[in-house]
Amino acid sequence: MVTQVNVKLPRFPRGYHLISSFLEKYLDDLPETGIAHIFIKHTSAALTLNENADPTVRDDFESFMNKLIPENDPVYRHTIEGADDMPAHLKSSLLGSSVTIPITNHRLNIGIWQGIYLCEFRNYGGPRELVVTVYGE
Amino acid sequence: MVTQVNVKLPRFPRGYHLISSFLEKYLDDLPETGIAHIFIKHTSAALTLNENADPTVRDDFESFMNKLIPENDPVYRHTIEGADDMPAHLKSSLLGSSVTIPITNHRLNIGIWQGIYLCEFRNYGGPRELVVTVYGE
Amino acid sequence: MVTQVNVKLPRFPRGYHLISSFLEKYLDDLPETGIAHIFIKHTSAALTLNENADPTVRDDFESFMNKLIPENDPVYRHTIEGADDMPAHLKSSLLGSSVTIPITNHRLNIGIWQGIYLCEFRNYGGPRELVVTVYGE
Repeated sequence: MVTQVNVKLPRFPRGYHLISSFLEKYLDDLPETGIAHIFIKHTSAALTLNENADPTVRDDFESFMNKLIPENDPVYRHTIEGADDMPAHLKSSLLGSSVTIPITNHRLNIGIWQGIYLCEFRNYGGPRELVVTVYGE
Repeated sequence: MVTQVNVKLPRFPRGYHLISSFLEKYLDDLPETGIAHIFIKHTSAALTLNENADPTVRDDFESFMNKLIPENDPVYRHTIEGADDMPAHLKSSLLGSSVTIPITNHRLNIGIWQGIYLCEFRNYGGPRELVVTVYGE
Repeated sequence: MVTQVNVKLPRFPRGYHLISSFLEKYLDDLPETGIAHIFIKHTSAALTLNENADPTVRDDFESFMNKLIPENDPVYRHTIEGADDMPAHLKSSLLGSSVTIPITNHRLNIGIWQGIYLCEFRNYGGPRELVVTVYGE
């Protein structure tokens, strides 16, 4: 059994955002056992799993990743789309364009501290499109 | 066909550990063709595939990643759980919470140099829980 | 329904290479809805999705990642296989050994700017083996 749904996220500001609750309505009616694959169709944003309780974790992601992959690095040649663009591409590949999560007893089987983050790397990224694919039995 | 098993890893010290042999008993009786998804239910540890022969590779992972993502970086605000905590969250998202491996002829079809690493980022991480999901036919 | 094919890539020079077109012939005859998993059987190369239009993005990946994860870092002990080897292992785990892409209406459902990159981290990496697994209905 495979089911799939397209999800349009509202525009989020630059930063790391917990979207677990937003995605819940697309992740009900799950099979007993299986896998959920959540994919982002963009190259300047990412999806990851991380700590879901303390918002300073998400703030620290933004601060640290900006320091690790700075804007205006002299090696960049792809600069025409703005100082935030090439760092966004690099962060997107380092954090990844999808998360894959086991389904057990009709529910996402993630750890109690794990939440799904949208990582928005652009200053004005616009709405983002996801594809959620669920398979199992 | 979907099968799934929960796996409790013993406590490993901080560092990068080859767990391919440990996981073998959970990865027998595989379908002829398919996929194995191995997921870690934690936000301060990760799973990755890398070199399985020379233990200095795993040591270099520990040394280099500690340098790339240092403890006590002045940008961190999430410091209450110890100096090793926020770096652990960052490393967890950069290395990833799951590996997905093809199954061919009833075996994991990984390269001869590829092994499955548990990446333990905390000084005292405790036992870690995995979920192994296999699907195929 | 699960189908799988082994793909041998020709030797690519060190750098980031768009292989979407090369892979097309292995990704025809897709199910209506499902998932494609593309896996690389090596620990000094990676697969990722990123910008498919401007080649300077791929050049900037090479320049920036070489700066982020430099050769001859004094912490490395695994140096016997050459200065490009340990950085290659680190980059491989940071960028990842597989991409997982949704299939919709018999086609890969990726964003219009997303392409599949082979990331070749060795100076002389040789031909690389992939395993493409498709499942769906």
